[in-house]
Amino acid sequence: MTAFHEFELIEWIRSQTGMSHTDLLGIGDDTAILQPPVDSELLLATDMLMEGAHFTFPPATPDLAGRKALAVNLSDIAAMGGTPHSALVSLALPRSRGPEFAKSVMQGIMELAAEFQTQLAGGDTNSWDGPLVINVAIIGTADQSHSIKRSGAQPGDWIFVTGALGGSLESHHLTFQPRVREAVTLRETVTIKSMIDVSDGLASDLQHILTESGVGAMIQSNQIPISQHVSPESTDAERLQQALSDGEDFELLFTVSAEEGQRLRDLNPLSIPLTHIGEITAEQGAKLQHPDDSTTPLESTGWKHQF
Amino acid sequence: MTAFHEFELIEWIRSQTGMSHTDLLGIGDDTAILQPPVDSELLLATDMLMEGAHFTFPPATPDLAGRKALAVNLSDIAAMGGTPHSALVSLALPRSRGPEFAKSVMQGIMELAAEFQTQLAGGDTNSWDGPLVINVAIIGTADQSHSIKRSGAQPGDWIFVTGALGGSLESHHLTFQPRVREAVTLRETVTIKSMIDVSDGLASDLQHILTESGVGAMIQSNQIPISQHVSPESTDAERLQQALSDGEDFELLFTVSAEEGQRLRDLNPLSIPLTHIGEITAEQGAKLQHPDDSTTPLESTGWKHQF
Repeated sequence: MTAFHEFELIEWIRSQTGMSHTDLLGIGDDTAILQPPVDSELLLATDMLMEGAHFTFPPATPDLAGRKALAVNLSDIAAMGGTPHSALVSLALPRSRGPEFAKSVMQGIMELAAEFQTQLAGGDTNSWDGPLVINVAIIGTADQSHSIKRSGAQPGDWIFVTGALGGSLESHHLTFQPRVREAVTLRETVTIKSMIDVSDGLASDLQHILTESGVGAMIQSNQIPISQHVSPESTDAERLQQALSDGEDFELLFTVSAEEGQRLRDLNPLSIPLTHIGEITAEQGAKLQHPDDSTTPLESTGWKHQF
Repeated sequence: MTAFHEFELIEWIRSQTGMSHTDLLGIGDDTAILQPPVDSELLLATDMLMEGAHFTFPPATPDLAGRKALAVNLSDIAAMGGTPHSALVSLALPRSRGPEFAKSVMQGIMELAAEFQTQLAGGDTNSWDGPLVINVAIIGTADQSHSIKRSGAQPGDWIFVTGALGGSLESHHLTFQPRVREAVTLRETVTIKSMIDVSDGLASDLQHILTESGVGAMIQSNQIPISQHVSPESTDAERLQQALSDGEDFELLFTVSAEEGQRLRDLNPLSIPLTHIGEITAEQGAKLQHPDDSTTPLESTGWKHQF
């Protein structure tokens, strides 16, 4: 294998990186320098993906692993109703896989970054004898005091979810579209009171909104949009459970006032499904209401990363 | 071992994290929200440390590994003459080592963060069967247009370095003090024209300044401050070579005008050594001048992470 050094990879990355933002001095110094936007607030998040935990080769390819590492961060920005701005990328590269592997990972990141006008602001490249680890830290912007938090849900709010849920790990967890544009369209159409992206499973992520807002929720079991990727040979109860608890859908879960909810349902401004699945209640706890009007607790059975 | 889940660790981290900055909404939503400071620019950097590559257990302990992950980022902020503000921390935790290990890593990070008024703004915790990986992304601030870049060196500038160089991996790479306060004192005393932290070795990091500034340098071989940690049984030539090429010293390497240089040398405002080691030249390339006035090329023999 050709000798390939960190500095050469950095130079290659630098040569590939567009300067899409005039307010950012990116790769090439000890830090990037960002001129803070006027009348905006900054959104900051980070996610680490590890080979064997968040993806495996195959079915993942190096570019799809890189793509996913940025996509999950873009989803965090979408969940705040923000606009992605720039990203910092750290890599732990398996030494045995060589420079082309490293470039593929970066290409997967840079292609998605270009699609969402996200500039690569800097990073850290390393190699070792371990598996691939990718960390992305993302910077986004939102209009001053207009970031959409988890804590704004109020009794009577309608609860919506985009897309369809369940079966992501068997289908699109490497290729999902972060709902950045959809979030912008939604917040331009209605006042979103609380929002989160569905990363750990609907039941689990809804619970984050309920806890932070100090409220409860009643979800209609027959309104949950079940993805076609949920195994068709399962029973209806199993399929519903998967839609409620599978992780990595990266759809948007949000609440709006009942009045805005009716308008949104009639209008649906998105090109993807948008489903009214329930209401926020003053009574704490999450419940599932069935077609026969019986209710059962909605357990947060989503992903728990035990260690 | 007690079952210990990601959400519990996050709650523990959240309970330990002070809110030192009123302009920052930290842990607890999809992203942190930062109100951009007025008349300042933001500095952004990231570093990933991997067990087996950047530290091993022993001699490292979990808290020192965490400490180092933040310290190298603080050093990047120092190298820009900035003030650290907040940090995002991602962890890949070895599942077998349990929750106390995870808390120790975080304690090492949080203690150093408190010492440098750096707020934990968010992060991502994961567990796997691999070794420990820590990624820190840091946000700093600098007065508008006053970040100190690598590209500002000019012919005639005096070159200074703080502290003493070499032998870090055998001594203080886990416990070094990032030169944040020293950088602030220096920039309040003189106009620093270019600066970098010595992470890859003096020769290698000097080359970054020279390349970015389009200049050369003449370094006095007998002026290099050699650390006491460089093996005393080596020859003088070997000891000099170590001081020039060892990585992870995290001292500051910077240039000022000759006039400011004389003032700085006479004044030394720091409580650590500050050494005038050479001059910037119009002629490109880095040279080492020996006591007999002969010169040899200064090779960038610092760390190259091959993969």
